[in-house]
Amino acid sequence: MGIGAPVFLVNYKTYAGTTGDDALAFAETIERVRDETGSRFAVAPQLPDLRLVAERTTLPIVAQAGVPRAESGMGDVTLEAVANAGADAVFVSHPEHEAALTAVDRAVDRCAELGLESIVAVESLSTARMALAAGPEWLLFERPADIATEEGMVRTHPERIEAFVEAVADEAPETRTFVGGGVRTAEDVSRAFDCGVDATGAASAAVGADDREAWLRSIATAVPTADSSRCGSNVNG
Amino acid sequence: MGIGAPVFLVNYKTYAGTTGDDALAFAETIERVRDETGSRFAVAPQLPDLRLVAERTTLPIVAQAGVPRAESGMGDVTLEAVANAGADAVFVSHPEHEAALTAVDRAVDRCAELGLESIVAVESLSTARMALAAGPEWLLFERPADIATEEGMVRTHPERIEAFVEAVADEAPETRTFVGGGVRTAEDVSRAFDCGVDATGAASAAVGADDREAWLRSIATAVPTADSSRCGSNVNG
Amino acid sequence: MGIGAPVFLVNYKTYAGTTGDDALAFAETIERVRDETGSRFAVAPQLPDLRLVAERTTLPIVAQAGVPRAESGMGDVTLEAVANAGADAVFVSHPEHEAALTAVDRAVDRCAELGLESIVAVESLSTARMALAAGPEWLLFERPADIATEEGMVRTHPERIEAFVEAVADEAPETRTFVGGGVRTAEDVSRAFDCGVDATGAASAAVGADDREAWLRSIATAVPTADSSRCGSNVNG
Amino acid sequence: MGIGAPVFLVNYKTYAGTTGDDALAFAETIERVRDETGSRFAVAPQLPDLRLVAERTTLPIVAQAGVPRAESGMGDVTLEAVANAGADAVFVSHPEHEAALTAVDRAVDRCAELGLESIVAVESLSTARMALAAGPEWLLFERPADIATEEGMVRTHPERIEAFVEAVADEAPETRTFVGGGVRTAEDVSRAFDCGVDATGAASAAVGADDREAWLRSIATAVPTADSSRCGSNVNG
Repeated sequence: MGIGAPVFLVNYKTYAGTTGDDALAFAETIERVRDETGSRFAVAPQLPDLRLVAERTTLPIVAQAGVPRAESGMGDVTLEAVANAGADAVFVSHPEHEAALTAVDRAVDRCAELGLESIVAVESLSTARMALAAGPEWLLFERPADIATEEGMVRTHPERIEAFVEAVADEAPETRTFVGGGVRTAEDVSRAFDCGVDATGAASAAVGADDREAWLRSIATAVPTADSSRCGSNVNG
Repeated sequence: MGIGAPVFLVNYKTYAGTTGDDALAFAETIERVRDETGSRFAVAPQLPDLRLVAERTTLPIVAQAGVPRAESGMGDVTLEAVANAGADAVFVSHPEHEAALTAVDRAVDRCAELGLESIVAVESLSTARMALAAGPEWLLFERPADIATEEGMVRTHPERIEAFVEAVADEAPETRTFVGGGVRTAEDVSRAFDCGVDATGAASAAVGADDREAWLRSIATAVPTADSSRCGSNVNG
Repeated sequence: MGIGAPVFLVNYKTYAGTTGDDALAFAETIERVRDETGSRFAVAPQLPDLRLVAERTTLPIVAQAGVPRAESGMGDVTLEAVANAGADAVFVSHPEHEAALTAVDRAVDRCAELGLESIVAVESLSTARMALAAGPEWLLFERPADIATEEGMVRTHPERIEAFVEAVADEAPETRTFVGGGVRTAEDVSRAFDCGVDATGAASAAVGADDREAWLRSIATAVPTADSSRCGSNVNG
Repeated sequence: MGIGAPVFLVNYKTYAGTTGDDALAFAETIERVRDETGSRFAVAPQLPDLRLVAERTTLPIVAQAGVPRAESGMGDVTLEAVANAGADAVFVSHPEHEAALTAVDRAVDRCAELGLESIVAVESLSTARMALAAGPEWLLFERPADIATEEGMVRTHPERIEAFVEAVADEAPETRTFVGGGVRTAEDVSRAFDCGVDATGAASAAVGADDREAWLRSIATAVPTADSSRCGSNVNG
């Protein structure tokens, strides 16, 4: 049923203390903050924890990876497997795990068949146009160099995010936009949504927060709620 | 607690019809055949199904992949995550997904800390000696060219398997041996155990059997039971 | 100065007997057939032989690979290096060596700066549209499954090639088209050019021919010469 | 004929200003310093420049990469190709480009047949033992984290290098040892050879030196000459 928008994604990546019982406990904290604040959150646990978090919470679930069966082999995780485990969306390509053209194209098509929302990461308008030709549900705009830094584009180049959002709105208005990389505070989150994106998120800042619940509550203040409509036509939720 | 020996591994790889409910149903069939025949079986589902199969059956669980956290990034699955999901063992390197020296070494060490049995695939005595220097629990002897064919080493070159088993027994007697690639029938399984290995297994033949339960019952006749002791000193179970 | 069109590419890939002196001898044979027949040929030797063949023949030279410096590390070969060695074009992405979106985009841009023609391989109209967004000089239409077989698209599905050529002519008329995979005979080459492509080529059939010169002469009969104009608007040479 | 020892390797990697004419000019500078000082130097240009530097200088040539033909495909460079281009040695595995067990084993064997010295990089004693089982000519001891930093092991942990040299001398006395990562000054080079290694080298420090010739002359003062015998039994040259 999709991850909705506007939304903030907590991405566990492969950080310590985010698997098994810890994966669930963190997700339950996110769910509680979501329920108490009305701000929409989603979560991306590691693949072995997808079903656990999907079954025990009502959060939208994003798979960190997934490949079409035709491109897969021993050890890979197929899009069917992540869909069956309860994922609502999947990163088809990500700066830390970039897919080739054929894999992106096949994955986007297979996601559509399986009812998964596909997310493709790009680092520029030019790569955004390449990705749009595959027809993904979401474009993630992120520069690899920003990951886990204090110098994300939301701080240093918000005008690039605005230009990105406008270009996507012009060329593929049904595609949702997500900005990531270096998002650490509520102010960063506000800046991101002010640029018109449908989603933003964090990994290292969320996992590494001294008090995760307090951090999430702070972030929640900056995530537009469904009825706040501050993002105009980009709020599709 | 490990996967024990002698044992036959059913490896789902990424075949169609082996995820979600299908993963569990197939595992329950394997469990039933195991219980009725007394032959030991293990199962390797896709990573999102590890916990489901671990919680709902008593089969030993093998993760198809897993990486040390220090080598990991977005989309990867850490050894911690597979251990927390209930895996007993993990393929640290496999012909379809080969790891580099550093990754093998770190993964074997981390498996030992986590109580996971590490399995490293090799294709020759020379690569076996390289892998043994890392100290894995298991060596899988398999030639990539044999995978999904009718021409596995068990049929064409059993003497190579015997030489492999002897070499490992000489050089690292505590390391268990596994042979794979092209194992399709009970006769293949008998040949494998006659060569002295602790384990063998199948993927395409198991998944593609017209009647999976009948196929498993046939295979079970060829897996030595713990008290049959036909494998002499190689039966460590 | 580019590789021109219509043209037939002899790709050495990594076949035995095509490096060092053999690389040059084969190229000299190609050059002789080119000179005697008037049909245009190009050659793709391994990277260490680029300069040797570029300096000792007048054939257009295609590098089998090349990466933008920003994506490179030890052991990689940069676009600057292949340009300096005398290459006229480079495979930025190929079915046996597929590049991710960012790498394709950066490589195409850097090729333009260096005066190299960029070639991006795609396997479908959908991936072609993705690649066109990067603006490469050439699109190679090839299905991985056809490589080194007798069942190339030119034999089994020429209508797909025609549709590909038409789509590219519509959407990016300045982009040249190349079809590969399973091209083995003069008849295959005729079929390819009849579909309107600017280039075709072979690897295994060329390298493995019993008499390479005879094979090349046969192929030459099927490569339109610059003044034959049989390919209409697609002949840009 | 090999690269000899003791030796200092200048590795161009993929740095700007090190290809084509620049590759040769830099090599000629190295050769001049070698000739005037009597200290032994070797050079690792990019693959398209191997033959150029091999033919126009008398420096030992190291290929940055090379794969056995059985593991190769379009865009790869085979060991045959680098041998034919004039390489004396090749990095079979390197921290920036690590090879899997099978590839290392096959490459080392093929190098022996072709008369190429094989270099395998390892980051620990444990991975060194894995690599030694393949029988390479050289082990490079290097931690990826040290590359292009000021904090190489030669400065921070010389005792680890000594332990490495001793372990290799015990277990495989015919194998030569090379230490890399963060080597920037003549003092670093002295420390490295004082630890008993047969070789050391630099990439970023060499390429980025304000005055490359002055930097090389400084380095040369710290490279033991063949008759200085300060490295005792580890000097095999």
